[in-house]
Formats: sequence, structure tokens, C-alpha cells
Amino acid sequence: MVILKDKNNMLVDTIRRFLRRDAISHLSKIINNTHAADLSIVFRSFSIYQQLKLFNLILDIEQKADTFSELEEKDLLDLIAHIKDEDVVKILKYMPADDTTDLISKLPEERSNKLLESMNFKESEEVEELLSYGTDTAGGIMIPDYIALREDITAKEAIEALQNDYSEVEMPFYLYVSDEFEKLVGVCSLRQLVVVSPYTQLKKIMSTDIFSVRTDTDQEEVAKIVARYDILAVPVVDENNKLVGIVTVDDVIDIFRKEATEDILKMAGVGEEFVETQTILRSTKTRLPWLFASCLGGILAFFVIGQFEDTIAKYAYLAAFMPVILGMGGNIGTQSSTIVVRGIATGRINSHEIWKVVIKELTIGVILGCIYGLLIAIVANVRFYDQQFAGYLALAVGLAVLSSMSIAALVGSFVPMLFEKLHIDPAIATGPFVTTSIDIVSVFFYFSIASILLGI
Amino acid sequence: MVILKDKNNMLVDTIRRFLRRDAISHLSKIINNTHAADLSIVFRSFSIYQQLKLFNLILDIEQKADTFSELEEKDLLDLIAHIKDEDVVKILKYMPADDTTDLISKLPEERSNKLLESMNFKESEEVEELLSYGTDTAGGIMIPDYIALREDITAKEAIEALQNDYSEVEMPFYLYVSDEFEKLVGVCSLRQLVVVSPYTQLKKIMSTDIFSVRTDTDQEEVAKIVARYDILAVPVVDENNKLVGIVTVDDVIDIFRKEATEDILKMAGVGEEFVETQTILRSTKTRLPWLFASCLGGILAFFVIGQFEDTIAKYAYLAAFMPVILGMGGNIGTQSSTIVVRGIATGRINSHEIWKVVIKELTIGVILGCIYGLLIAIVANVRFYDQQFAGYLALAVGLAVLSSMSIAALVGSFVPMLFEKLHIDPAIATGPFVTTSIDIVSVFFYFSIASILLGI
Repeated sequence: MVILKDKNNMLVDTIRRFLRRDAISHLSKIINNTHAADLSIVFRSFSIYQQLKLFNLILDIEQKADTFSELEEKDLLDLIAHIKDEDVVKILKYMPADDTTDLISKLPEERSNKLLESMNFKESEEVEELLSYGTDTAGGIMIPDYIALREDITAKEAIEALQNDYSEVEMPFYLYVSDEFEKLVGVCSLRQLVVVSPYTQLKKIMSTDIFSVRTDTDQEEVAKIVARYDILAVPVVDENNKLVGIVTVDDVIDIFRKEATEDILKMAGVGEEFVETQTILRSTKTRLPWLFASCLGGILAFFVIGQFEDTIAKYAYLAAFMPVILGMGGNIGTQSSTIVVRGIATGRINSHEIWKVVIKELTIGVILGCIYGLLIAIVANVRFYDQQFAGYLALAVGLAVLSSMSIAALVGSFVPMLFEKLHIDPAIATGPFVTTSIDIVSVFFYFSIASILLGI
Repeated sequence: MVILKDKNNMLVDTIRRFLRRDAISHLSKIINNTHAADLSIVFRSFSIYQQLKLFNLILDIEQKADTFSELEEKDLLDLIAHIKDEDVVKILKYMPADDTTDLISKLPEERSNKLLESMNFKESEEVEELLSYGTDTAGGIMIPDYIALREDITAKEAIEALQNDYSEVEMPFYLYVSDEFEKLVGVCSLRQLVVVSPYTQLKKIMSTDIFSVRTDTDQEEVAKIVARYDILAVPVVDENNKLVGIVTVDDVIDIFRKEATEDILKMAGVGEEFVETQTILRSTKTRLPWLFASCLGGILAFFVIGQFEDTIAKYAYLAAFMPVILGMGGNIGTQSSTIVVRGIATGRINSHEIWKVVIKELTIGVILGCIYGLLIAIVANVRFYDQQFAGYLALAVGLAVLSSMSIAALVGSFVPMLFEKLHIDPAIATGPFVTTSIDIVSVFFYFSIASILLGI
């Protein structure tokens, strides 16, 4: 059994050895026997000049195009910067239209214009049409690679069309059926064609119960439809219900993985895009502003605590409980917001039920607050058992933990629900903002309660 | 354009209205015209007795089976508890073997035994075989629904087999080809069959470049293979390379979504499974132990700070800087660990490069620590400009921020990398554990530096 990770590490080691020995024929053999998807990962371990050397060893131009398709955006842009326009155009011919469009949209304008001019008319027209849709919409990710036939043709004619006109369609799972006005009216599977009598018309065998999306449908919605109904491709139609493309299941997998990564990164306050493969400077820049929110909040907390200087001067150990109070609030707040954000993303939580969700989280916060408040109060009482203020101190600490955890659960669940209602991405509600505001409220409550109970 | 969420909300409202009026014929019409995937979501908004009423309105037994397949585990178990054994067995007949197996494995033993006994021999044998594999392996998620033909038969014979023997296979994307010893030797697509001459043998057209997994391959690895090579199904073979099942792309989507959710929940310290749809008690129980780690850490921090009681009594405002120091450390620690954990999960970070990654994160921690250390030191200096200790205090606070952020970046990146090396799930390295240990180290450094600089 081969594990992908080990396979890639072995490949990298072997290629590195051959590169050192400049064993071109061995390298060529390896490169031309490796799947483009693996090449794209292996490339990351080499310098751009080594990558170019390896890339030039690829003999089959389709393999070159596949490698282009598989490379991560940044890696591809680096590589392409070192390849001549005419060679790029030759390779783009073999790339799916959606990938070409993606690439063209990311290149510097001057270069993308040059490339578009050098393409043949049909190709550049296709790309320019796809470019006109938003990147994150069905129009932006669809491919024009589909089979569309008229409802009055027969199964036999359909099979002939498949063999002749559509021999280049890569994944012919579904045959879409249109009426005389080119409107999408049904779908049938390839299998149905071979099972029925050859002279049956498509309209007799097609299913009219068809899921389609519009060119402006958000890609996340497209992905959800494909996943919910377990289909292999969803047809994309324009405002006249005319078929203009399809989105296939392999793109849907990519969308889900990308969205999950984006959500996770946003929740931790590290921007949206994966920056780890990028430079230290770029990574620092992305993380700086999110930390600024936390810094501002911390400074605010400093001024809040400053109001209680006298209390702290008199009872210094009050300060020692701050980390546990902030920590408990922060952690339960993260729990609540994570559950809500992920619940919304996966459809388990309905944003209409805002109060139901918030009250549930608050209840959990209060229960857990009572448990941990009591526990920490006991610790405080035991530690200062010989002091006369021990009881009040324990009470103050316990109440502070309770209020901090309850407020954290409330804020942590309410803010993302509110953001969802306001059509702001709820994932950004979890990062430093929520934690920091919980910090401020928590210390204020803590010292207020302590000041009153200890009579200052 | 219909948005899935709105569509479901509308459905729920309509059904609720009809239920109130007890308008059975309307309800029946709606239920029988709704896709099972939508029904499974709509059901969540109704009580178990309403669900039963709706479920019994489904006329087509295949639709009942599909609804079983689509329901979330907990919802399905609740519903099934109210359905008679004989009815369940009838429905299971129409459910894919992997879903049936899943269900049987989750039911109380007594009931699952009874159901297995009432099934016919072939079905129960299939289920028992699937049960023998680990739930999270290829064997546990595969379906026996595939087409396997011998390499010496012709395209024409293959099409005939498709029409007769395999007419029940649901998604016949690929035809797997085996040799005389039943070993998997190749694959060809349905399309190839209709394109070649009818008397071509399968071995002439099949591709021998085939990705397969073993029954004990981890499901995450299976999902990665399907995603990496953009295939619609991957064949599962036993130790003798004999084909025993396939895993299809729709299951792969579910695996990725589930794994992403699990990772997110683990990172926030809320267990692994989604508990939001469950009771308050259950949710509280899941979250309790994770918070306990944070509580213990906080109490430890309390004792650490207790050592510096004299310092705090003398300079009470030192305490006021604690939230900002802890907050900055906690936030950058979360950033680092999130980047590493997600990087490992998506294959962007290679666990072999442990020092490269940790040194990079540490560098970023030091840079950001210098920036924010300086900023917060300036605030401290401005606030206490009229006091003679202002300079030292500012220096102490600045150094504390720098050390806290550097240590947090170091620990936040090192721990998940280490866990990955030790084959422990790196996602659990991010929750309360890392944050809390960073807290303890941070306060210790802070008060130590302050005590030295302020000369106590």
C-alpha cells in the first residue's frame, strides 16, 4: 500500500539525486512517468531553475498542460514568468478553459493581453467570456465541456454524436437535453442510451427533474447542491435557461477544501489565503493587522484595570487570578463561536433560530461557569484559608469565573449569528475581536465584584 | 435562482402549516415530491412524532431508503427506534450496503442482531463482511456496487453484461478489468466501449495505469487520492489484489467535509463530533474536560504569579498589563498552530521539514513581538511618564510582550509538528493546551523581568 506523502518524499529524493548527478535521461524517464498532480507537489521542493529544467523535460504537451492545471497559483505564476509567450500559448491550447481563465486573470495585464492576442479566436473568446463572470460564481468556475443534444434525436443518433462531435468531452457522465429554443429541459445518462432501443427519442428517456444553477450563483452554493444531491456535474444556465457550461464534482471537492481552509484561517485571524508557502515578510504582513485588534483590546483592558489600582495594591493576589479568569472565558468563547460558525457553514445551524442557539450556548456557559467557578473558588479558599477575607475572595473569584464564562458563551454565539444575519462572513467574528472584548468585560466584572465584596 | 437554505425554510413553513391543519393529501403530495436529501434536512425541524407521520406518507420504498441514507446518524437512530423491525428490514433492502452497515453498527446489539437475522442471507453476509473492516478505512466505506469484467471479453459482450447483469449498478463510470486469477489489472470507461469496434477485447482498450487502495487504507488517504487524481471512484482491493469494492466521489466529499469539521472542532477544544444538534447536557459534557485543561493551567499560573506577590503589591499597575501580554501571546500562538495544523492537513506543510517551519514561525514571532513590544512599551511609558520608574517599566513590559509572542510562535508551531511526527493528531495540539502553557510561561517571564528591572 502506497501512502501519498511517502510516495512524494521518495520522488523528491530520487529527483534530487539525479539532479545532482545531472542524469538527464533518468530524470526524463521519471518526469514523464509521473502524474501531473504529483509533479505539481514535487515541484515545490525545488528551486525555480530546477523546476524549469524538470518542466522542459516533459515531452507530451498535454502533460505540460496538466501540470499547469495542477500547480498552485503562486507556483504556476513563478514558473510561467520564465516561459516564453509562444510556448505558454501552445500549452494553454490543451488546458481546460476554466483553468486558462484563472491563469489569465492572475497574470500582469500586459502579459495576459499578449497571450490573449496570440491565442486563436475561438479560445480567446471562450476565455474572455468566462472572465466576464465573477471568480467565485458558477460562471467563473464552469467549463464549456459538455454534451447538449436536442430532445427529438434518437439514442442511436446520440451515440453517433458522442463518437464524432463530442469525442473530446472529458467526462461525459450526463447528456443534457434542450428544446428547440435551446432551453435546458432534461438530462439522461450515458448508460440509459445503451440500455434502450436505438430509436427511442431522448425526450422519452430523459429525466426532467434537473438541478441547474445560474451563472451568477455563488460557488459555495454550487458545491452544496452537488454534494447534497450526489451528482457528478451540475449544468450552468444563463438568464434564458440556456445551457452555457457545467461545474464538475472534482471542482466541487476543491471548493469545499478551499472554503474549509479559508474558514479555519479566518477563525484564527491569519487572513484568508494560505500564506505558509509564502515569504516571512508576506506572512508577517498578513498577521499584523489581526494582532493589532488584540493589542488595542489589551491596552483598553489595561486602562480598565488601572481604575482598580487601589484594590490591587491592597490585595495583590487578586491579580494572580486574572489568567485563569481570562483563560476560562477565552476558551469557552472560542468553543461557542466555533460551534456556531461551523454549524452555519455546514447547515446544521439555521440563522433564523438565533435566540434558540444563543440561549442554548448561554445555558451551557452558565452551567460550566458554575462548575468551574466553584472549583476555582475552592482553590482560592484553600490557599488563603488562614486569612479572614478568604470567604469573600473565594466568592469574588467564583463569581468572576461564572460571569466571564457566561458572557463569553453569549458573545461567542451571538456575534457570529448576528454577522450571518447581516450577511457578513461569520468566520471573522471568532478571531481576536471576540476574545479581546471578552477579556475587557471579564476583568471589569472581576475587579468590580472584588472591590464591592472586599469593601474597597 | 433558488438558494438551498431558503428552499428548505419554505418547505418547513409549508409542511408546518399543513400539519397544523392535518391536511394529509397536501402533505403526501409535498413529501413525495421532495428529494430525500431535502427531506433529511427538513425533518430536523419537526418532533419525532411529526417525523414519523411524514415518513409514513412516503409511498415509494426506495424513497424511504434514500431518506434513511440521507438522515444524520442521530436523527436516523431516533426515527428507527419507532419503526417496526419488519418494516426496517424491507427498507434496508433498498439501501446501499455501506449505509446499511453504518446503521447496523450504530444500533443497540440486540436490535442489530434481530435485523441481521431477518435479512436474506446475501444481504446480511454483505453487511457482516463490511462490518469486519474498520469504520474509517476504505473497507468500511466502500460499496460492492461495481462492474468487474474479464480482460478477454469484447466491447459488445461488455455492453450486454451492462444491460443484463449490472443493470442495478448505480454509477457505472468505470469498468474494472480483472485477469483469470481475479486480480485487478485495468480499467476502461463506459465511453470507450461505445467508441471502439464491438469485437475489441477489453485488454486492448483498458488503461493499466490504475489507482487502487487496500481495504485497510485510511479513509482520509482514500479521499486524498480521489481528489488528487480527479477520479470518480477508486477501486478497493484485498491483500491478493482482488477487487472487493469501490469508494465513490460523493463519499469522498462527505469525508472531506467531516474531516474539516472534526479538525475545526478539535482545534477549538469541543470534542470531535458535532454536538450542536444534541442536548445541552451532552454538549456540556463534551466541553467540560477541554476546559478542565485550561482550568488546571490557570491555577498553575495563579501559583506562579503568587511568587511575585511582593512585586505586585509594590507596583500594582504591573498587573494591569497582564491581559495584553497574555492576549498577544495567545493570539499569535493560535495563528502559528492553525497555520501548521491546516498546512499539514492540506499537504502544504511537510512534517519532515520540522525545523524549517518552526524557525520560520519563530522569526515571524520575534518580528511581530518587536513591533508590538515597542508599541505597548510606548503606551506604558506615556502613561507613567511622570514617574521615575517609567523607563524600566516600559522596558519590562516590552520585553515581556516580545518573549511571550516569540515563545507562543515557537510552541504553537513546534507542538503540532511534533505530534504529527509521533502520529498523534496535530489538531488536538491547538486547543486549550497550547494556549494555557503559553500563559504560564508568559506570566513567569513577565514578572521575572519586571522584578529584576524594577529591582525587587
